[in-house]
Amino acid sequence: MDIESLNFEHVKSQDLPLPERVAAQISKLIVDRQLTSEDKLPNEFELAAMLNVGRGTIREAVKLLVARNILVIKRGKGTYIAHHPGQIDDPLGFAYYEDQFQLAKDLLEVRLQMEPWVASLAAKKATDEDIENVWATCHLVENDILSGVDHLPNDTKYHISIAKCTHNLVVPKLIPIITYSVGLFGSLNGNSLLAETISGHRTIAEAIASRNAERASQAMYNHIARNREELISIGKHMENPD
Amino acid sequence: MDIESLNFEHVKSQDLPLPERVAAQISKLIVDRQLTSEDKLPNEFELAAMLNVGRGTIREAVKLLVARNILVIKRGKGTYIAHHPGQIDDPLGFAYYEDQFQLAKDLLEVRLQMEPWVASLAAKKATDEDIENVWATCHLVENDILSGVDHLPNDTKYHISIAKCTHNLVVPKLIPIITYSVGLFGSLNGNSLLAETISGHRTIAEAIASRNAERASQAMYNHIARNREELISIGKHMENPD
Repeated sequence: MDIESLNFEHVKSQDLPLPERVAAQISKLIVDRQLTSEDKLPNEFELAAMLNVGRGTIREAVKLLVARNILVIKRGKGTYIAHHPGQIDDPLGFAYYEDQFQLAKDLLEVRLQMEPWVASLAAKKATDEDIENVWATCHLVENDILSGVDHLPNDTKYHISIAKCTHNLVVPKLIPIITYSVGLFGSLNGNSLLAETISGHRTIAEAIASRNAERASQAMYNHIARNREELISIGKHMENPD
Repeated sequence: MDIESLNFEHVKSQDLPLPERVAAQISKLIVDRQLTSEDKLPNEFELAAMLNVGRGTIREAVKLLVARNILVIKRGKGTYIAHHPGQIDDPLGFAYYEDQFQLAKDLLEVRLQMEPWVASLAAKKATDEDIENVWATCHLVENDILSGVDHLPNDTKYHISIAKCTHNLVVPKLIPIITYSVGLFGSLNGNSLLAETISGHRTIAEAIASRNAERASQAMYNHIARNREELISIGKHMENPD
C-alpha cells in the first residue's frame, strides 16, 4: 500500500467521539481502496501521523473495527482486513428478541416465501460445480443425522449451497439470517422430521440437479411447510401441556 | 436488578480472549433476563466481582459491546442496554463489496421477489393506524421530492411502513437491508423516475388502504421493476458512454 498517496480528510469538528470518527475514516479507506483480507493496515505510527491524532486514539479506533469484524489482528504480523468485513453473526440481533417463538414462526413465514423462489432460481442458474456442492452438503446432513450428531450447522450450509447456485450476491447472505431459528425449540429433532429432512433435502437436490425449477420450488415449499407445521404443533403443546 | 441472583458461569479456559468471553457472558445475561433499554447494567465493580475478573477486563468487554450496539454509555448515568441491541447499520457489510453495481442489481432482484409479497400481506393485515402511517411516510417522500430535498431516507421509511403492516417481526428488519442500494448511482434521481416515485407510492398506498392484496402486489412489482429498468439503463450508459 502506498502510504504517501493516502488522502485522508483530517478528522475534526463532528459530533461523534474521536475514536469513532477515526474508525469511520479507516472504514472509508478500506471501501475506497477496495482492500481485501490480503491487505495489511499501516501501523499505529503511520496512521497517527496520517490522521493527525494520537496513537492511543488509533488503538481505540482499531479496537472498534475489530469488535465489528472489519479488522483482524494477527499476532506478530499486524492488523489486517477481515475476510468478510463488517459481517457479524446474528446481524439483526434476533437473540435479543423477547418472543422467540413468534420470531421462529415469522422467520418461517419469510422462508416459505423466499426459499421456494431461491430453489427455482438455483435450478435455472446452477453450474455443475454448484450442484456437486449441493450434493456434498446434502450428504453431510445425512451423515450427521445417521450418526446421531447435531445436523443443524450443516443444515444451514445445505440451504446456503442452494442459495449460491443463484449467483446472486445477496441471497446467500440472507439465508443464514432467515434460518436463524432452525433448532430453536428442538423443532427439527423429532424422529419423523429427521426422516423428512433426509428425503426432503434429496428431493430438492434432485430437482435442482435436473434443472427443474418448478419441481425445485415445490419441493422446497413442502420441506419448509413441514417444518412450520411441526413448530406450530410444538407451540400448541407449549400452551396446553398434557 | 437483583445482583445477588445473577448466576454467571465463571469465565475460564475457552479459546477466545478474556474480554471477548466476558462480553459473551454479559450478552447472555441480557438475553436470559430479557433486559431492555430501560435497564442499567451493574457497575464495573459489581460486574468484576460477579465474573471474577479485573475491572480493566470489564471495561474492555463493555467497549466491545458498545461497538456492537448492544450497550450504550449514558454520560453521568451509567451503562444501559441499547434500544435495538445488536442491530447495526449495513449488517451484511455491503459497503465492502467490490462490485457495487452488481450488488445493486442483485438487491433489486431480491426486492422484486420479496416486496410484492410484503405489499400483499400488508393489504391483508394492516390496521387503520398502520395505513395512516403509510400515508404519512408517503407524504414525507412527496414533500421531499417537491421541495428538491433528498428523499431517499424517507423513501426507505415508506417501504418500512408497509413492512410494518404485515405484523411479521422479521420483514421490517429485512427491508432496510435490501433497500441498501437505493440511491447508489443516483438511479432514483432522474426527473421521470421522481414522478414515477410519487405516483407509484400513491398507487401502492391506495391498494393497501383498500385492502386489495392483488393490486398492492402488482403496484409494488411495477414500482420496483421501473427502478430496475432505470438501473440497467444506467449500467449500459456506464459501459458505453457517449
